Amino acid sequence: MNCLVVYAHPLKKSLCGSLFEVVAQALADNDHDCRFADLYEADFDPRLSGTERASYYAAYDNSGIAQEVRDLEWAEVVVLVFPTWWFSMPAILKGWFDRVWAPGVAYDHDANLGAIKPRLKKLRTVVAVTTLGSPWWVDRLVMWQPVRRTIGTAILRSCAPQARFFMLSLYNSERVRDNQFNIFRAKLRHTISRNLR
Amino acid sequence: MNCLVVYAHPLKKSLCGSLFEVVAQALADNDHDCRFADLYEADFDPRLSGTERASYYAAYDNSGIAQEVRDLEWAEVVVLVFPTWWFSMPAILKGWFDRVWAPGVAYDHDANLGAIKPRLKKLRTVVAVTTLGSPWWVDRLVMWQPVRRTIGTAILRSCAPQARFFMLSLYNSERVRDNQFNIFRAKLRHTISRNLR
Repeated sequence: MNCLVVYAHPLKKSLCGSLFEVVAQALADNDHDCRFADLYEADFDPRLSGTERASYYAAYDNSGIAQEVRDLEWAEVVVLVFPTWWFSMPAILKGWFDRVWAPGVAYDHDANLGAIKPRLKKLRTVVAVTTLGSPWWVDRLVMWQPVRRTIGTAILRSCAPQARFFMLSLYNSERVRDNQFNIFRAKLRHTISRNLR
Repeated sequence: MNCLVVYAHPLKKSLCGSLFEVVAQALADNDHDCRFADLYEADFDPRLSGTERASYYAAYDNSGIAQEVRDLEWAEVVVLVFPTWWFSMPAILKGWFDRVWAPGVAYDHDANLGAIKPRLKKLRTVVAVTTLGSPWWVDRLVMWQPVRRTIGTAILRSCAPQARFFMLSLYNSERVRDNQFNIFRAKLRHTISRNLR
């Protein structure tokens, strides 16, 4: 499978960096064809520009993100590895969605500005791997899982409704114990090895 | 009152631009002391840097955002004007929260990494003004209002639990009619004029 791995943490030596290594190894073990997009390393600018916004309802000008567009259109699997800050994506990853998951790439506008039309027909699986400081019950019972809803419901149902979505959240990440982290990594390895088909 | 108005749209000629004008006029009419932060115009970089992240649990290095920190600490009122994209903030605004609403500025870490401690004691009112393409029922019944929960619950209850929070959402923004937009602007003017005290 064509697998695009998006990494959105400013440091490589971090819990997310360690989870990225697990993903890369599991994909290699299963002989998938991989592309890696380390957004910080690539100096990706997450700000949808004035030119992009002005062309959003005409012919979207994606000339500033040509490589990112090619990678997304190529992908059958997308794996996202990122920290959750304030119960939402870090700015650099939000901007990747704002700019790259755009008209003519990820979806098409409806002629009457009704529901948008999916365009990522090749995309079969999306795996979101994230760390967050809060305990599980705040994310689920107080916040109603805003990251899961944003990616899994709002974005994927609009752009790739056929894709399966897996979300793996490492809670209490600021004080996670070694054995808990090892269990999480094993679960991640298992998810990647079993579900990409 | 000290009012900080944050604008997060790449274009001035837009629905958000028009709402920004309403806010600025209503604040002037009521003789508030205002500062305006147009994040695009200021070329604000929303990416929490490696240096910032590495210092996050020690002494947070906010040297790259000194003015933004001063403005936030000065504010008794914050008014945010932004488009909602994919049911969340645009990257440039998310990054303003990621970088500026940080330890030593907006909150303090707990010694045992338990619940964080509020620090923005001067902040009395926050008004979020946003436009979104979707109808109200998708935001409320399907998505459970992720932007309202992120700003009003996750961020404000942690950093300024005493602050009142108002959220004004212009739904169906891609095809809003003139009279609907006029009603929304009147409601916004009224909210600003009546509630900043």
